Amino acid sequence: MTTEIQPAVPGIRFNGSGEVTVHVWAPEKKKVEVCLENGKSWELSPAEPGCWSVVTDGIRSGDLYRFRLDGKLSPDPASVSQPEGVHGPSQALDLNRFQWSDAGWKNVVLQDYIIYELHTGTFTPEGTFAGIEQKLDYLVELGINAIEIMPVSQFAGGRNWGYDGVFPYAVHDTYGGPEGLQHLVDACHQKGIAVILDVVYNHIGPEGNVLGEYGPYFTDKYHTPWGNAVNVDDEWSDGVREYFIQNALMWFREFHIDALRLDAVHAIKDFSPKHLLAEMKERVDALAAETGSVHYLITEMDLNDTRFISPIEKGGYGMDAQWIDEFHHALRVASGQSKTGYYSDFEPITSLAKSYQDAYVFDGQYSDHRKRKFGIKAEGFPGSSFIVFSQNHDQVGNRMLGERTSELLSWEMQKLLAGAVMVSPFLPMLFMGEEWSEPHPFQYFVSHTDPELAEAVRTGRKKEFAAFHLEGEAPDPMSEDTFNGSRLQWELVNQEPHKSMFEYYKELIALRKSNPALHTPDRSLVRVYADEARQLIW
Amino acid sequence: MTTEIQPAVPGIRFNGSGEVTVHVWAPEKKKVEVCLENGKSWELSPAEPGCWSVVTDGIRSGDLYRFRLDGKLSPDPASVSQPEGVHGPSQALDLNRFQWSDAGWKNVVLQDYIIYELHTGTFTPEGTFAGIEQKLDYLVELGINAIEIMPVSQFAGGRNWGYDGVFPYAVHDTYGGPEGLQHLVDACHQKGIAVILDVVYNHIGPEGNVLGEYGPYFTDKYHTPWGNAVNVDDEWSDGVREYFIQNALMWFREFHIDALRLDAVHAIKDFSPKHLLAEMKERVDALAAETGSVHYLITEMDLNDTRFISPIEKGGYGMDAQWIDEFHHALRVASGQSKTGYYSDFEPITSLAKSYQDAYVFDGQYSDHRKRKFGIKAEGFPGSSFIVFSQNHDQVGNRMLGERTSELLSWEMQKLLAGAVMVSPFLPMLFMGEEWSEPHPFQYFVSHTDPELAEAVRTGRKKEFAAFHLEGEAPDPMSEDTFNGSRLQWELVNQEPHKSMFEYYKELIALRKSNPALHTPDRSLVRVYADEARQLIW
Repeated sequence: MTTEIQPAVPGIRFNGSGEVTVHVWAPEKKKVEVCLENGKSWELSPAEPGCWSVVTDGIRSGDLYRFRLDGKLSPDPASVSQPEGVHGPSQALDLNRFQWSDAGWKNVVLQDYIIYELHTGTFTPEGTFAGIEQKLDYLVELGINAIEIMPVSQFAGGRNWGYDGVFPYAVHDTYGGPEGLQHLVDACHQKGIAVILDVVYNHIGPEGNVLGEYGPYFTDKYHTPWGNAVNVDDEWSDGVREYFIQNALMWFREFHIDALRLDAVHAIKDFSPKHLLAEMKERVDALAAETGSVHYLITEMDLNDTRFISPIEKGGYGMDAQWIDEFHHALRVASGQSKTGYYSDFEPITSLAKSYQDAYVFDGQYSDHRKRKFGIKAEGFPGSSFIVFSQNHDQVGNRMLGERTSELLSWEMQKLLAGAVMVSPFLPMLFMGEEWSEPHPFQYFVSHTDPELAEAVRTGRKKEFAAFHLEGEAPDPMSEDTFNGSRLQWELVNQEPHKSMFEYYKELIALRKSNPALHTPDRSLVRVYADEARQLIW
Repeated sequence: MTTEIQPAVPGIRFNGSGEVTVHVWAPEKKKVEVCLENGKSWELSPAEPGCWSVVTDGIRSGDLYRFRLDGKLSPDPASVSQPEGVHGPSQALDLNRFQWSDAGWKNVVLQDYIIYELHTGTFTPEGTFAGIEQKLDYLVELGINAIEIMPVSQFAGGRNWGYDGVFPYAVHDTYGGPEGLQHLVDACHQKGIAVILDVVYNHIGPEGNVLGEYGPYFTDKYHTPWGNAVNVDDEWSDGVREYFIQNALMWFREFHIDALRLDAVHAIKDFSPKHLLAEMKERVDALAAETGSVHYLITEMDLNDTRFISPIEKGGYGMDAQWIDEFHHALRVASGQSKTGYYSDFEPITSLAKSYQDAYVFDGQYSDHRKRKFGIKAEGFPGSSFIVFSQNHDQVGNRMLGERTSELLSWEMQKLLAGAVMVSPFLPMLFMGEEWSEPHPFQYFVSHTDPELAEAVRTGRKKEFAAFHLEGEAPDPMSEDTFNGSRLQWELVNQEPHKSMFEYYKELIALRKSNPALHTPDRSLVRVYADEARQLIW
């Protein structure tokens, strides 16, 4: 009557004794083979429902391969390496070859996290993991203890924010591939820096997405802003769930990642009795129990819903923390942002005061922008459940011109915003370069190789901002100039006035670390008073 | 910044002092008027977000009316009476005029419920609420203490199971309208019988549905077997949520209904922090606290998900009980039903034993039929959380020929099935007529007045059962013969062998009531042993 599915790691995995296990989920195929570029191939046998597998000693680390599904060749959806890009073959790599030197590493305690969000491609001139390593001493000096790396899964071309990744298991080739990431994490741990990796489980990018060739990864039961939802509760969803859960486990196990930042989890539509995130949390905890490591799951979501951060035994999904964009929105309106779009719901002072006090600004009230009552009270959740910021990649880059606060606000206001974040009873996050008031924007850029898609993105972006034509033309996301213009200018750190801003951030961070009231904030002791007329909050 | 919505009862409601409150949710309209058939009209003023209202002393109970939305006339989606059918005007009725005589009534304790499901149109020759009243003494003699009435909301024509209702607040005219239902409930309470009303909050029927003219009652974010889902978590969903919550409250408050059976709640797609059902439960509890009455919410659902029946404080939705179709499926396979369709997942003896022991047959195992792992363990929930049956309107009527077990199984097997239900540690439910082994089928019937729709249903039904042509032709759902052939034949109750079956059911029910182990089953003491080879379960 019942068949228990034994979780298996998808893709090609090395067992350390010269053999590999090849495992693939392709529930509606008749014949599945793994084919090396050198001509050798093996037929896979049906395993648990919907899966195929074979064990062989004929595959070496570095070999290029594809699967052949009922005669049609396709790269591996669980490929860990795509050395020739998204349209090329997959590469078998033994992830256990890396020599780790972080045996003494212990993850930073969540409530101590001071996070620095960065984009690998534009953070340094090199645009690589190795480039980031060159900046670790700088980050230590700044005082942060966790970097959050925007998604690194293989995407089309060389320039992308990362949310168009199509091989969730593959580390982008031009960033340095899997070994480059392992090396960076190891180096971070040497310097006392935890690594948060941004991962996207709610959609797959548009170019080079082979998932549909393997099985029903998507369902038309639910729609999301990115099209059909990922299939996590419909027919054949076990394989899809396992695909994403194993992905999370891989980052912790093979890459020593300390925390995952799960992108836009509100778009993961799951009516199963156990939500995908809750199941992921249980599996991650089981891994942690095995390895003795500590791993966090952090969600980005456009929901004020404590179910996500409630413990599993209380009917929650057990996430460790979530972003709260509303703190950002309130803060920006308080600093002069005009009340358009999603800012329209916020009052300069009272909304910010509400967020300091209650985390969520909307916790049950009617929202004009959303045209419904929104949110639920976040009482009883510690400050470490919430991550706040005065800017991030989205809030900067989703503006037509991608201006940072450096270009929008006065010098003093920038400092006030930094202070507002750093004294909050929540976990603070900076966006790369804000600490020296980097003037370069962070604009939306892509490098699709499919000309039709490239044109569609270009046109779509223009259309999105058509109403803003008085403010200028939306930059061309396909242009390399847009990408280059979004790079940090490191030479500024040592020039005034940027140097002073850097020193200011350094002191702010040091203050937060040394002051017990800031360092271990107790939300129940927080009292916030606001006076809209006098523009005061205390 | 925030506007609190004050819940208002939609439609025309009499305040007892000669005035009525007219309230309608129409969020994207510019002008809303209420227009009597006699020519008088009043313009409504904007009330809370999306709503319009007016108070007037110019409307009398019995008056016919429509709303005029930006110039277009339409009946009231919260109409309590449609005396000229779904395409006619609405009728203002003072629901408080009814003289209740059930002041001494106390709802039956849930764990004592012995439920009798009936369809008003085919239960008696009259096909009315008054007809049901004539049978209450009979039902008392049988021993049941709760009737469950299939949906009574206004539908197109005179013949329908009830799931095509389009005015959720209106009691079907040919059944006897609102006062007929009030009279029936009052009479039931006189006889010690609780009344469960079947209500449909997951979709609206196809003919005469005016909801879309008023506002975004539906969303294309989610798909259900009945098309777009009801909009309970998207823009403007507050009005939709309030519409269904107020509907539930009306049945309890103005009709003294004891429990609602919520149809197919798995199709209510709600990602709000508070699920519609949880909010409904809180509001129903608040009403109960006010009136001192006890009200239950029972769900029908195709999910083995304890979140629905868990208390709200544990992250659940607080439902009092749910149907478990899996007990039925296991029981039917155990009695010889061939393992086709959804029966394919079940083993004759072991599945039934599992359901006796664990309620859900699938509580985490892989289901071949559903092509995924299904369900979660139902440990710790009392037997009164689950409602079981050997047949019901769906399981009978969804067969091509609508045969009851009377036509499918031997006399002795029918008795065994009745016993299997009645000794279960769950709440038992009969389907009208099974207690005398009624030979008439219960077939699918409708009476759409829209010829295109009628033809579509006719063709669809034929197509659905095309593969079964060897077993005969699917009956025409539009034919009055199909309806008449589904009526109970009361004359049989006094004829053998039906009389003996009736006596058997009577004794079984009496046994359940008198035997403490059956009457107050403690699931933690239930031990079930099964031997598939010997076809034994004990």
